[in-house]
Amino acid sequence: MSDAGVSTEPITIAVLGGGTVGAEVVRQIGAQEADFASRVGAPLQITGVAVRDAAKSRPGIDPSLLTTEPLALASSGADIVVEVMGGIETARECILAAMAAGSSVVTANKALLAADGASLYAAAAQYGVDLYFEASVAGAIPLLRPLRESLAGDRVLAVLGIVNGTTNFILSQMDERGADYADVLREAQDLGYAEADPTADVEGHDAAAKAAILAELAFHTRVTGSQVSCEGISAVTLADVEAARQMGFVIKLLAVAERAFDAEGNDEGVIVRVHPAMVPREHPLASVRDAFNAVFVVAESAGEMMFYGRGAGGQPTASAVLGDVIAAARNRVAGGLGPGESVYAELPVLPLERATTRYYVNLDVADRPGVLATIAQAFADNGVSIQVVRQDGHGEDAGLVLRTHKATDGALARTIESLSGMDAVKQVVGVMRVEGEAGP
Amino acid sequence: MSDAGVSTEPITIAVLGGGTVGAEVVRQIGAQEADFASRVGAPLQITGVAVRDAAKSRPGIDPSLLTTEPLALASSGADIVVEVMGGIETARECILAAMAAGSSVVTANKALLAADGASLYAAAAQYGVDLYFEASVAGAIPLLRPLRESLAGDRVLAVLGIVNGTTNFILSQMDERGADYADVLREAQDLGYAEADPTADVEGHDAAAKAAILAELAFHTRVTGSQVSCEGISAVTLADVEAARQMGFVIKLLAVAERAFDAEGNDEGVIVRVHPAMVPREHPLASVRDAFNAVFVVAESAGEMMFYGRGAGGQPTASAVLGDVIAAARNRVAGGLGPGESVYAELPVLPLERATTRYYVNLDVADRPGVLATIAQAFADNGVSIQVVRQDGHGEDAGLVLRTHKATDGALARTIESLSGMDAVKQVVGVMRVEGEAGP
Repeated sequence: MSDAGVSTEPITIAVLGGGTVGAEVVRQIGAQEADFASRVGAPLQITGVAVRDAAKSRPGIDPSLLTTEPLALASSGADIVVEVMGGIETARECILAAMAAGSSVVTANKALLAADGASLYAAAAQYGVDLYFEASVAGAIPLLRPLRESLAGDRVLAVLGIVNGTTNFILSQMDERGADYADVLREAQDLGYAEADPTADVEGHDAAAKAAILAELAFHTRVTGSQVSCEGISAVTLADVEAARQMGFVIKLLAVAERAFDAEGNDEGVIVRVHPAMVPREHPLASVRDAFNAVFVVAESAGEMMFYGRGAGGQPTASAVLGDVIAAARNRVAGGLGPGESVYAELPVLPLERATTRYYVNLDVADRPGVLATIAQAFADNGVSIQVVRQDGHGEDAGLVLRTHKATDGALARTIESLSGMDAVKQVVGVMRVEGEAGP
Repeated sequence: MSDAGVSTEPITIAVLGGGTVGAEVVRQIGAQEADFASRVGAPLQITGVAVRDAAKSRPGIDPSLLTTEPLALASSGADIVVEVMGGIETARECILAAMAAGSSVVTANKALLAADGASLYAAAAQYGVDLYFEASVAGAIPLLRPLRESLAGDRVLAVLGIVNGTTNFILSQMDERGADYADVLREAQDLGYAEADPTADVEGHDAAAKAAILAELAFHTRVTGSQVSCEGISAVTLADVEAARQMGFVIKLLAVAERAFDAEGNDEGVIVRVHPAMVPREHPLASVRDAFNAVFVVAESAGEMMFYGRGAGGQPTASAVLGDVIAAARNRVAGGLGPGESVYAELPVLPLERATTRYYVNLDVADRPGVLATIAQAFADNGVSIQVVRQDGHGEDAGLVLRTHKATDGALARTIESLSGMDAVKQVVGVMRVEGEAGP
């Protein structure tokens, strides 16, 4: 498209939220004005920026654009409304009002999408507008468009990734420096990598929201954040990290969305889970450090793919938002709409116990003959096969570290329960899922 | 979109080419019939498959669909024409005829796109149809749609990748097994990883076509395959591979597309090059082995991203083709068109000598005092700064291995020229670019 093809009628854009991301979106629309006009076929024009404090100085943003009334700005009928305020209630109200006024919406709001994406999609369909949300998962990494569009001709089997930068920073630092969870968390807070209240990150809620969004796109099935089995990293100890290291593994907080099959290999449902897991050091996810994100996708025809990049931050997130803004703006100029909700498959969301995983189990046991046999029997009774076992005597007690072959999460949980009740087992020191190994 | 939203009017698809990819596309459209209908909003119907030999048995393809007249099938007015024949002249004729008949086109033909993408785009614009070609670069990896759409709101600075599986297999085997180039090439031919005439792969022409396609999308600038500086791997010796290993590097055939800046940091043009390069073993591209592909993208706001997956093969390529088929079919059902050609930036394509790289240089020199000083002076005279130098005496001669800091390719080439003419230099044993190191 040449400059000659740029219409003079601008595409109007209202931005809800003037934080790091919002400010960067506004700045880039100014800085790349000529490029964006050529790519869209029309100039982009910001009509307003909704902020909390209109008096605050915001370099690069014309103060006359500022407003403290997001709902009024959202309802103003701009071609595109960009929602980067966060939160649930006000954001939903603004997005629905924007769509009712005929605006296409670009949002980075994973919490809202995971809680109630269905309402947003329904309103987008009702009013014939676009809903784009690439920035909601894995920041700058183009991931949702590939899942939604490039892989639309394939059958996605599983999505497995590191999608929360805060927890990945903490786990990386624990692994690399042998630092304690509490110390690294404090450091992350000082550096601005973790919030003053870190719950949403460290308890896995942020990753669970992203896992729900990924699962919905991958499996054409509605999944909400509350359907995701979620365990965070606050219980991960330095002892776990060091045990992993000794075995050649590293601990990562993983978001996993996968199909579950019945005995004939037909789809039975999907399982979506977030939890710390041990990953072999030679696995590509093991080398994803600090605030980076990476997502593995396994599809029937395409095989394994990995997407890697920056998962957060003002500039990377703005890049993803602006890609969506350009797409929505092109649709305004050229006609047509991006893909809508696709949940036709309606697969049931199954509980965690149906997941098939491996386990790492670390036990303090009595150091007497026959203990290993007793413990091995407990695994066998629950249908769990042991892959590796290492026994270290130390005085009266012995340490027993095991890794299992694949079994259902339910069978593994029942095994742990029987172990906990055994005389020979003095303490269950550590239990963690193991992901990313090839084979049975 | 629910089943209730599926219209009964089918989207018709003509497939040109019944090889591995074409047959797999036809097979999957059958196998995933219900899913595809739900994703598109209408059923997909194959109207014909153009093959060379209609008598050959093709499991999973209805023989009544076969035709040996691709041009007639292409002109038949199907909603979508899939071109997976390869070659230039017939493929171009068929694609242009298809567009003239109102068909959207999905192609995997990198050679045609790199040679004459402009004609295809012009015809698509003239007839108001889609042109999609995700499968033309990096097989199953969603890469072109992210570049064309997800990163449309960013400023891509560089694209750097492993995009040819055959050469990556050969180089991986040389590195891992210490096998000779000629032996591994023969093995790759036996395994079907390399053609009987391997020229297009081993001389870098295939990678150059892909580099041209990537550069055009990344920089909004028309780039043809003939504008790509291209050097293959046929001159890479086991000695080079072992020298790389000793320094902690691995040799990869890289496709690089990058912006070049003037002294003020403004865009001066783009440089597109394909050549073997030494990459540090800790760089993510170093661990991309065998027939896998991986592409690094660096963008101003998004930062570094990597896309990794299977670069070739019938199933992975079919996955990419089918993603495009679904996109084109959705556009037929919902209205609208995908993005067209975007070459508004019209940056000049600069010669290789303007590229900024590092070099590895391996010299046999006379073992006498002052030789290192003389050689260092030759680098300095050409404005090239030495990063590391290692000297090994062996009898009358000495071996000198150097790595430089970043300099223009022109300055490095002039340095090699002056070294070759020096008395103290008995032989220039090896010279190779070094990519993927951080710093100056």
